[in-house]
Amino acid sequence: MELKSTTTFKVRFNEVDSMNITWHGHYVTFFEDAREAFGKEYNLDYMTIFREGYYAPLVDIHVEYKSPLVYGDEARAEIKYKDCDAAKIIFEYEIYNQKNNKLVAKGSTTQVFMDKDYRLVFYPPEFFVNWKIRNGLREV
Amino acid sequence: MELKSTTTFKVRFNEVDSMNITWHGHYVTFFEDAREAFGKEYNLDYMTIFREGYYAPLVDIHVEYKSPLVYGDEARAEIKYKDCDAAKIIFEYEIYNQKNNKLVAKGSTTQVFMDKDYRLVFYPPEFFVNWKIRNGLREV
Amino acid sequence: MELKSTTTFKVRFNEVDSMNITWHGHYVTFFEDAREAFGKEYNLDYMTIFREGYYAPLVDIHVEYKSPLVYGDEARAEIKYKDCDAAKIIFEYEIYNQKNNKLVAKGSTTQVFMDKDYRLVFYPPEFFVNWKIRNGLREV
Amino acid sequence: MELKSTTTFKVRFNEVDSMNITWHGHYVTFFEDAREAFGKEYNLDYMTIFREGYYAPLVDIHVEYKSPLVYGDEARAEIKYKDCDAAKIIFEYEIYNQKNNKLVAKGSTTQVFMDKDYRLVFYPPEFFVNWKIRNGLREV
Repeated sequence: MELKSTTTFKVRFNEVDSMNITWHGHYVTFFEDAREAFGKEYNLDYMTIFREGYYAPLVDIHVEYKSPLVYGDEARAEIKYKDCDAAKIIFEYEIYNQKNNKLVAKGSTTQVFMDKDYRLVFYPPEFFVNWKIRNGLREV
Repeated sequence: MELKSTTTFKVRFNEVDSMNITWHGHYVTFFEDAREAFGKEYNLDYMTIFREGYYAPLVDIHVEYKSPLVYGDEARAEIKYKDCDAAKIIFEYEIYNQKNNKLVAKGSTTQVFMDKDYRLVFYPPEFFVNWKIRNGLREV
Repeated sequence: MELKSTTTFKVRFNEVDSMNITWHGHYVTFFEDAREAFGKEYNLDYMTIFREGYYAPLVDIHVEYKSPLVYGDEARAEIKYKDCDAAKIIFEYEIYNQKNNKLVAKGSTTQVFMDKDYRLVFYPPEFFVNWKIRNGLREV
Repeated sequence: MELKSTTTFKVRFNEVDSMNITWHGHYVTFFEDAREAFGKEYNLDYMTIFREGYYAPLVDIHVEYKSPLVYGDEARAEIKYKDCDAAKIIFEYEIYNQKNNKLVAKGSTTQVFMDKDYRLVFYPPEFFVNWKIRNGLREV
């Protein structure tokens, strides 16, 4: 059972730096947009997590840049949920240039759970386990 | 009695666009930094306002761009509090290039007060009136 | 003859500040996105202007904030070209919350023309005059 | 011979998200600021590299988040140059909260060299080898 989502976006004028390529820092936003799209599609967005009583801050991000995006380029972000037993949400990302299907960047993020008092949660929250069951990643 | 404050900053690599000049949108941040510096100097920063029970969201911003800042330029932001009787905080700004003292941009912002339930406040909050008195803008 | 364009967008997680509303500085980007959409629809985008030998930097921006956008809100940006005889591009903007059609913000921007050596251009470039003719704003 | 540099910065209002902590994406900017400070101290900044005929785009960034920074926190970024024989610039970063000296984040970046036609350079440029010699990392 593979959970994945795809979004497309267009490089904005203000995302391009003086080298005429997309500034590397914006990929963090591209990843976040992909995560949002995934969250919306699979009911695991920030608001859902928050309503369940948790924050899910990032504790790790890794981006590898393969080829540049220039102003006006259309790109496609593919995000894949990578299941594990820990109280973590791990995603893998690939961004492609829509023009030639070339890999632009790849990477991963890891999120943990914190309760509303900002305390780290060591076991997967019940709502998250149920989410896995509903999505065929765990048996009841 | 004039209340004003001065800060300096350096243009970051990621603030420069593909025209090799500072992207116009970053001036909103330069203004905010100036406002922060003023707030810290005169005890009117976001946290102080928040502790008093209010938010002070912007309702108006105006920026006029006079000459460009390029990567690495050092600039000076001057902020001046413009007193009025309404429940508003109005600031005027001027940004100068430190190299040649040339005017880079000028502008203004207007903030209003909202209580913690996001309701607009029509009369100047007591803490704000006291702030004016303490700073010689009103008599007791 | 009215030239206008409409785009929609969704408020990103990272565009919301600690007051839980969209940080005011992001509206500059919302305006830019609207300008891009207009430029694409009417062939007056940055790349077209650049290919004609010009930059079109902003010299003035004004934003009035009417009601907040929160995380996840969908919004609609309407941009209208305001013709004038000077060597300027003036746009007016209105942003609405798609949920209730409430006005979120309005504003304007003014752009001038600079040649590739960053010199201000005092007369409307020929390509721009032709653009006006093609769009019914001037007679041949 | 260890080449390192230290900068301090203050968390801006607009860098804090709706969880009231610094949005993870801003650490890319904190790293860039540290890199700039290093570049200025050791003559390896973007402009120097550019004047020598090269770009030095990032090809890899990794950030681990250890503890949050909140609005108004003062932080210290330590950057260390990690020498290698390849045509790469590798840096390691640690960010600390000035208040309690707690580790806030750590990470690394890798940059490569491209010539002005955006072609990857496979051997360390001469100016970079000379830079290493001048800084005691290589013998003449």
